Amino acid sequence: MPDPSLLETLPTPVSTPFVIEHTNEEFTSLCPMTGHPDFGRIILRYVPAKKCVELKSLKLYYQSFRNEGIFYEAVTNRIRDELVKSMKPKWLQVITEWRGRGGINSRIMATHGTVPEEWKRG
Amino acid sequence: MPDPSLLETLPTPVSTPFVIEHTNEEFTSLCPMTGHPDFGRIILRYVPAKKCVELKSLKLYYQSFRNEGIFYEAVTNRIRDELVKSMKPKWLQVITEWRGRGGINSRIMATHGTVPEEWKRG
Amino acid sequence: MPDPSLLETLPTPVSTPFVIEHTNEEFTSLCPMTGHPDFGRIILRYVPAKKCVELKSLKLYYQSFRNEGIFYEAVTNRIRDELVKSMKPKWLQVITEWRGRGGINSRIMATHGTVPEEWKRG
Amino acid sequence: MPDPSLLETLPTPVSTPFVIEHTNEEFTSLCPMTGHPDFGRIILRYVPAKKCVELKSLKLYYQSFRNEGIFYEAVTNRIRDELVKSMKPKWLQVITEWRGRGGINSRIMATHGTVPEEWKRG
Amino acid sequence: MPDPSLLETLPTPVSTPFVIEHTNEEFTSLCPMTGHPDFGRIILRYVPAKKCVELKSLKLYYQSFRNEGIFYEAVTNRIRDELVKSMKPKWLQVITEWRGRGGINSRIMATHGTVPEEWKRG
Amino acid sequence: MPDPSLLETLPTPVSTPFVIEHTNEEFTSLCPMTGHPDFGRIILRYVPAKKCVELKSLKLYYQSFRNEGIFYEAVTNRIRDELVKSMKPKWLQVITEWRGRGGINSRIMATHGTVPEEWKRG
Amino acid sequence: MPDPSLLETLPTPVSTPFVIEHTNEEFTSLCPMTGHPDFGRIILRYVPAKKCVELKSLKLYYQSFRNEGIFYEAVTNRIRDELVKSMKPKWLQVITEWRGRGGINSRIMATHGTVPEEWKRG
Amino acid sequence: MPDPSLLETLPTPVSTPFVIEHTNEEFTSLCPMTGHPDFGRIILRYVPAKKCVELKSLKLYYQSFRNEGIFYEAVTNRIRDELVKSMKPKWLQVITEWRGRGGINSRIMATHGTVPEEWKRG
Amino acid sequence: MPDPSLLETLPTPVSTPFVIEHTNEEFTSLCPMTGHPDFGRIILRYVPAKKCVELKSLKLYYQSFRNEGIFYEAVTNRIRDELVKSMKPKWLQVITEWRGRGGINSRIMATHGTVPEEWKRG
Amino acid sequence: MPDPSLLETLPTPVSTPFVIEHTNEEFTSLCPMTGHPDFGRIILRYVPAKKCVELKSLKLYYQSFRNEGIFYEAVTNRIRDELVKSMKPKWLQVITEWRGRGGINSRIMATHGTVPEEWKRG
Repeated sequence: MPDPSLLETLPTPVSTPFVIEHTNEEFTSLCPMTGHPDFGRIILRYVPAKKCVELKSLKLYYQSFRNEGIFYEAVTNRIRDELVKSMKPKWLQVITEWRGRGGINSRIMATHGTVPEEWKRG
Repeated sequence: MPDPSLLETLPTPVSTPFVIEHTNEEFTSLCPMTGHPDFGRIILRYVPAKKCVELKSLKLYYQSFRNEGIFYEAVTNRIRDELVKSMKPKWLQVITEWRGRGGINSRIMATHGTVPEEWKRG
Repeated sequence: MPDPSLLETLPTPVSTPFVIEHTNEEFTSLCPMTGHPDFGRIILRYVPAKKCVELKSLKLYYQSFRNEGIFYEAVTNRIRDELVKSMKPKWLQVITEWRGRGGINSRIMATHGTVPEEWKRG
Repeated sequence: MPDPSLLETLPTPVSTPFVIEHTNEEFTSLCPMTGHPDFGRIILRYVPAKKCVELKSLKLYYQSFRNEGIFYEAVTNRIRDELVKSMKPKWLQVITEWRGRGGINSRIMATHGTVPEEWKRG
Repeated sequence: MPDPSLLETLPTPVSTPFVIEHTNEEFTSLCPMTGHPDFGRIILRYVPAKKCVELKSLKLYYQSFRNEGIFYEAVTNRIRDELVKSMKPKWLQVITEWRGRGGINSRIMATHGTVPEEWKRG
Repeated sequence: MPDPSLLETLPTPVSTPFVIEHTNEEFTSLCPMTGHPDFGRIILRYVPAKKCVELKSLKLYYQSFRNEGIFYEAVTNRIRDELVKSMKPKWLQVITEWRGRGGINSRIMATHGTVPEEWKRG
Repeated sequence: MPDPSLLETLPTPVSTPFVIEHTNEEFTSLCPMTGHPDFGRIILRYVPAKKCVELKSLKLYYQSFRNEGIFYEAVTNRIRDELVKSMKPKWLQVITEWRGRGGINSRIMATHGTVPEEWKRG
Repeated sequence: MPDPSLLETLPTPVSTPFVIEHTNEEFTSLCPMTGHPDFGRIILRYVPAKKCVELKSLKLYYQSFRNEGIFYEAVTNRIRDELVKSMKPKWLQVITEWRGRGGINSRIMATHGTVPEEWKRG
Repeated sequence: MPDPSLLETLPTPVSTPFVIEHTNEEFTSLCPMTGHPDFGRIILRYVPAKKCVELKSLKLYYQSFRNEGIFYEAVTNRIRDELVKSMKPKWLQVITEWRGRGGINSRIMATHGTVPEEWKRG
Repeated sequence: MPDPSLLETLPTPVSTPFVIEHTNEEFTSLCPMTGHPDFGRIILRYVPAKKCVELKSLKLYYQSFRNEGIFYEAVTNRIRDELVKSMKPKWLQVITEWRGRGGINSRIMATHGTVPEEWKRG
């Protein structure tokens, strides 16, 4: 079951703003309609305010979706919300890219705060 | 025969705007001049207002073009119009990319509403 | 409906044996269980005896499977049989490669006559 | 829990021998040491005797490993054994390719019967 | 000999502006200095006003350069001018990309009208 | 018009046998049925006896097919014959690979003499 | 141990501003939590004011991190700071891209000064 | 020895502005420190005013650097200056990309005049 | 310092022979002449007799070369010897592939026992 | 001027036979007909008897061809002969691959001794 309490944070090492990007190639959850597994990639990009997400805790948080039945759109927005709540970043993007079902691949992009022009396309 | 009544929608899971992209690698219709099959990819990208297109219904809608004789330009604009009518999105793009005939590949791009700068190129 | 009478042949231009390979990237038929379209590539490889298949007739023959409900294994063996009957080649291979359904891609290989070592892998 | 009773078979459509290959890009199980998920690809290749594995049942069988803690070597040999028992093929190969852990990717190959020279490398 | 009278047009199917792109991978003409053949790709991109170029006529028009001795820069500008005259589009780009001679590949880009920001790079 | 008199040879620099391979990415001739241009790649591979083909003369010889209407099978065998006559090599392969027409790519392979096992696949 | 005194500079050869980019594909340091090695790529991009970093000294400086336990975020900001101090460039970017651990790849981007629009994405 | 007198120009074929790009994949010079050869790619991009550089003369000019000991930064700026002097273009970019030494690849970009937004990234 | 005592083994799960392959993309050691780091990939392939190498212990064993000055040829043969001693496999291959120094990439292949034909090329 | 005296050797570290392969991506010499530079890749593969070629000396030896006018066939056989003389290996292959001139790429392969089956294709 998705568990945001798994997320841990570290203080940012410097006060100068900088961009952090973590790409997980091995995300899997279940389709809530058919129960079949979905497989995808999740890209997280943000500028930290005072906290960075700790990498191992992020992995465990993602793994907690393994047996959850949840739509593409919902999982993307949920991860966005829970990461924002945990880190309170200056801005943040969550992009999910899903291996196709029935010949259709999908990509969902949710954001928080004012994403600079150069990152708007994901 | 292309059948927009196949399109079904779901309510958007959140009120925050987010981008949805569905890429169908397996589109086929017929050339209205020669009757030979055309093969291509369709990229649909939009920000939902209140409704998202349901993925399986989108697949069936695309499949309904299988034996329709229709030009590249017409199929692109028709899909744009029928998806806009079904979902009333904030903005929407339909991009079709066609495997070549006689050594020429084609790409057609139709839009609805104010597409943000970062997506204008398709 | 698959129609082997579409296949036409030409006499081979020389008596020295040589290898001919035609790869069709745009094959489509229907799944006999679900009615959903299947998409794939067909590789035909052979050494002609007295006849070569005419390229345009091969294309039309392949297109005649468009609305046929037929399993991967059956379509591969059927095309092998009908091409062998039409051309009576020294040897012949038909290899079909199918875009995945449910995350599984498939490849079927049927042969006729004594395929030389170097081609046995397809 | 891995469940070989999910495997169903179909009679082979022809008596001429031919090669069948199914590649699953979306296999996942758990590491029995750490409980972390493993992700990989499984290639199944065989020449049927009287029976072919039914494709959808193969998918469900593979999915039944989702929450099983099992080593790379064991899962490969187990799938080999259960498919051989179900289909009694002339020969069969199971090749698993695993996304790396700690920078090391792995590939395991188990076979049944006399695999012809041209397929021995997987 | 390049023959613009080969170009035929069709009325645009809709009044909403949309982008059309045709990429010819098989362009060839002759070097006016050496007589050796040049090989390249031509990308045509435009927003139609009232007319679209008919695809087969475009292919024949491109083929009419086959035995013409003409510089890269001249052929690009000439195709731009003749397509503009034929279709009177809102804007249009012609980009030619040439396989190298003496280790140097070339790319020429000519435009007509106000090309939007997102397409200026070709 | 194809002109084998363009082919020139050089004596081999050493008496030890060695393999020579020339790949022309820019071959073009005409379809004898429709008059439309065909585009392809030609791979020539051989072990010289006493003579090697001079590279520039080979280029000019290939260019002499530019406006010839000739089938894939015929052009491959013709080039084989004319190169064999010119160089009298120990063995020789000519492999032509053609960009698709109507979605079908083709590959023709003609040989002379006893091609060693390791080269038989082209 | 990371040693900024290894960094040497050269005067810029011209007064016109120009962009310099050095990409090191072979960076390695240690994870401060586990002691396991991290592997990555470092991209350095800047416009020099009066000094350029000397390439060999840059290599040695990067090598001095080999046995240092340091987080992704810290190493990126530290390299930015030490290069800025050494060269006083008009602007500078340091982008680190890390091979994945536990299926997650990371990318960190730190900047100094006013990076022009076209480089903001890294 | 680098010799700008090798550069020849042609008048531009049309008065409408258009973009020209020449990419040389085979540039080589010597490292002034070690004497070892450097290998790289040079991209030249410009909008001509009244003159275009003649392609063969450009090749010979580039070849004249073959045995010159010169730094990456210096060669890029020198080529920029000598091409500007020869053609007086509206704007011009010279981008050099160097195969790595000691695991570091480099890229230098020098410009002349007001390069439009869409080309600023090189 | 390279430490073969780090290597641990597991009993093979089945008595049927099967092939195991582990590819480490992140090997690094030092050049014994210059002290500069070398980076490479190591492929280990074997058929176990009674023992398999445990994957985590293999990783730690490879990491123990991190600060060892050792030639390409020596490291390859040493790893071969120490793995053979630890596992006593039916046959075994160690292939090392090294990122280039001075523009030259290298690949070394050492074997133990009778490697079957299909694996001899590495 | 090509200088085989640059070649130095090291004793082989073990008496067990093993394969060594060095690939130089940056070979350049001159065309003896036109004086224009040729660029290519050289693959050297051998099993040492008592001596291995020292890597840096091999690089310098290759560099000594930089300003030599020499045909593809001659340079390949010459390098084979000079390396055989220097190392007296059990067997050896030299394969040169040349960037195209006039659209034709070339590949030359010279061997010494009894090259095992698995390497015969280069």
